[in-house]
Amino acid sequence: MKIQRVQDLISIKRSIEAGTSEQQAVVKGIIADVRSRGDEALSEYTEKFDRVKLSSFSVTEEEIEEAYGKVDEQFISIVREAAENIRTYHEKQLRPSWMTTEENGTILGQKITPLDSVGVYVPGGTAAYPSSVLMNVVPAKVAGVKRIVMVSPPDADGKLPAAVLVAAKEAGVVEIYKAGGAQAVAALAYGTETIQAVDKITGPGNIYVALAKREVFGDVDIDMIAGPSEIAILADETARADEVAADLLSQAEHDPRACSVLVTPSLELAEAVATEVEKQLAVLPRREIAAQSIADYGAIYVTENIDEAVETVNQLAPEHLEVMTANAMELLGKIRHAGAIFIGRYSSEPVGDYFAGPNHVLPTNGTARFSSPLNVDDFQKKSSVIIYSEKALKANGAKIASFARMEGLEAHARAVEARLKNDN
Amino acid sequence: MKIQRVQDLISIKRSIEAGTSEQQAVVKGIIADVRSRGDEALSEYTEKFDRVKLSSFSVTEEEIEEAYGKVDEQFISIVREAAENIRTYHEKQLRPSWMTTEENGTILGQKITPLDSVGVYVPGGTAAYPSSVLMNVVPAKVAGVKRIVMVSPPDADGKLPAAVLVAAKEAGVVEIYKAGGAQAVAALAYGTETIQAVDKITGPGNIYVALAKREVFGDVDIDMIAGPSEIAILADETARADEVAADLLSQAEHDPRACSVLVTPSLELAEAVATEVEKQLAVLPRREIAAQSIADYGAIYVTENIDEAVETVNQLAPEHLEVMTANAMELLGKIRHAGAIFIGRYSSEPVGDYFAGPNHVLPTNGTARFSSPLNVDDFQKKSSVIIYSEKALKANGAKIASFARMEGLEAHARAVEARLKNDN
Repeated sequence: MKIQRVQDLISIKRSIEAGTSEQQAVVKGIIADVRSRGDEALSEYTEKFDRVKLSSFSVTEEEIEEAYGKVDEQFISIVREAAENIRTYHEKQLRPSWMTTEENGTILGQKITPLDSVGVYVPGGTAAYPSSVLMNVVPAKVAGVKRIVMVSPPDADGKLPAAVLVAAKEAGVVEIYKAGGAQAVAALAYGTETIQAVDKITGPGNIYVALAKREVFGDVDIDMIAGPSEIAILADETARADEVAADLLSQAEHDPRACSVLVTPSLELAEAVATEVEKQLAVLPRREIAAQSIADYGAIYVTENIDEAVETVNQLAPEHLEVMTANAMELLGKIRHAGAIFIGRYSSEPVGDYFAGPNHVLPTNGTARFSSPLNVDDFQKKSSVIIYSEKALKANGAKIASFARMEGLEAHARAVEARLKNDN
Repeated sequence: MKIQRVQDLISIKRSIEAGTSEQQAVVKGIIADVRSRGDEALSEYTEKFDRVKLSSFSVTEEEIEEAYGKVDEQFISIVREAAENIRTYHEKQLRPSWMTTEENGTILGQKITPLDSVGVYVPGGTAAYPSSVLMNVVPAKVAGVKRIVMVSPPDADGKLPAAVLVAAKEAGVVEIYKAGGAQAVAALAYGTETIQAVDKITGPGNIYVALAKREVFGDVDIDMIAGPSEIAILADETARADEVAADLLSQAEHDPRACSVLVTPSLELAEAVATEVEKQLAVLPRREIAAQSIADYGAIYVTENIDEAVETVNQLAPEHLEVMTANAMELLGKIRHAGAIFIGRYSSEPVGDYFAGPNHVLPTNGTARFSSPLNVDDFQKKSSVIIYSEKALKANGAKIASFARMEGLEAHARAVEARLKNDN
């Protein structure tokens, strides 16, 4: 890895895949088609893209039971424990509706309501990602969403991965469909005969899924369109080079466009980590992906001191930030921008990916400056409540009417005055 | 107004103005130009579109003082009281960062941090909208945003409206620039020599402003792109027709595409309101706009009973909902989808537009199904905090590694195991 001094302005921004205009046209076509022809179109696209003709999109009870038979007991128990940890962490985020009462009789408040329905997209492909099921479903469940629908593309035998079905069941999803790609997103957004439309779609997917989510946004809500993953590690001379290197590589193995950065005031650590990365990289199963990522987006920045290192990290606003320094806890207050902050050497990033409880769906590409991890608020919405009293309107009606007239909105003023007049 | 029975599915959705491809091209060009040439480009566009050559974009202390001289004392005191009410309501939304401590030493939490900087766009044109200044600035201020920047297009004399400057000062904004349109949005998103870039842009504007916000979204955050305004009134025979009609018209006067709907089980009320709307409309200053809106998007729906009326309102998911029924408070629990809920005849909608405290920036066009009023959360973001203990990693490390391997991510497993190995 290249070791360099921090320059004026560093960034981890990589361009977000926008798709070719051909891909965009394909996605628009699929959405329009599913919207107008429903199940029939969904069926045809599934046959075309997933190469399987389904008699039904719905995953049955029997298929879920079968899935439990295919995974080992230990896996089930780990998933169960992870789900419980995620549930406990997200339950802490729940907020009650609230009201304030004023002496004049006015009541103001905020009514917090779960969304009616949410669709979770789970990608298919060579590997199964049960952790993604847990991280998307559990917060929605905790938020109180009554209807949670899962969609995922079937394999050539018309099945979903056993691990994904087990995770879904453990997370509490009962409505699961075998459908993927832009056609599944269209079905979730606009409904078909089989799949009722939802209010929000979350979950990762390939470029077609991402483009489809962007396209239906506004008619339904979506979560973020995530960019490739990234980690920044803030470490001093007390950190162990092999652990720092292992964590950098755990990010790099995700994607050739993943970004792994070490920021340290210690040149000695910088050099040791560079050496360790090479060593560990050589024996990684996914070394081609990781090597590409490290070559293109890996960097070690050496700073003058720890304060400059913290400032550098805030500038990066990384998705994951690990802090392995002598006084890690003390630095927490200075860290302004990061999706998830891992403090100390036992808080290796995969701890958060799978098990500790916080969400692994995090803002990427510098958006941690203004965005948050997926959380319970994403599955609830607020309504303002205004119960204005007679006394309050009589005391303030003339002021409100005057403000409205100042903005040239006479009907606003008259609406308020209608009450004052009627009561006289 | 047309009186009709509720059909199967009713909706208040109107198409959101997407701009012509020519407008889109113009906006892209302006953004690219401001991004590369900074102040020089901003200056040229201001001269072109606002027809004024400015010596400086910055609003000075003297100009603000001058503005105070131009508005009357009563206006200042109303703005001050409104700002105070908005502040009090939004302060109730503040949430602390939180942590949980586990017996094994692990600490998990959520760190809640204000955004570093926010830009508020205030539209120009014939009328000044100080209420918009208050509703956008105060929540950001309450959230703890340190740098709040306001931009607004100057008039031909190079000035901003006095009412807007006074509202800005009362809300606590000190950094104000005379710039509008797509060029101002570009300056806020990417910075110029004079205007430092911000993290989020909020506030309404014309189609060029809306397109520009959409264009810079991702590089910075934006608030919603609001559609035309709407109101639904849920009323029974106890409501007064003249008050219902006045409130429908207060919405209709905003925009020919505004939408005003009455939902009632009382045919008698329906007929009385239809008559009242005609009567009041005839003497409104903005009657052309209101009449167009009522003709195109106004409707009175008569339902079988109050339950059907509530269900209809939930289906509409209106921006504003007024409830004027005998048992209005009891219905609150059944209302799932509305931006702001006004209960009782003294809660006329303009009370919320200007004065009561809740925000007037609300989800439109049915998006209240999944979106919220502008609120303090919009100006803060969360970071997960994971401080995993030695004990916790030793108890759970093997499970985490096993989960990672199940997903085919060997480097993830090894990162966790590096700690276990080093400690042995």
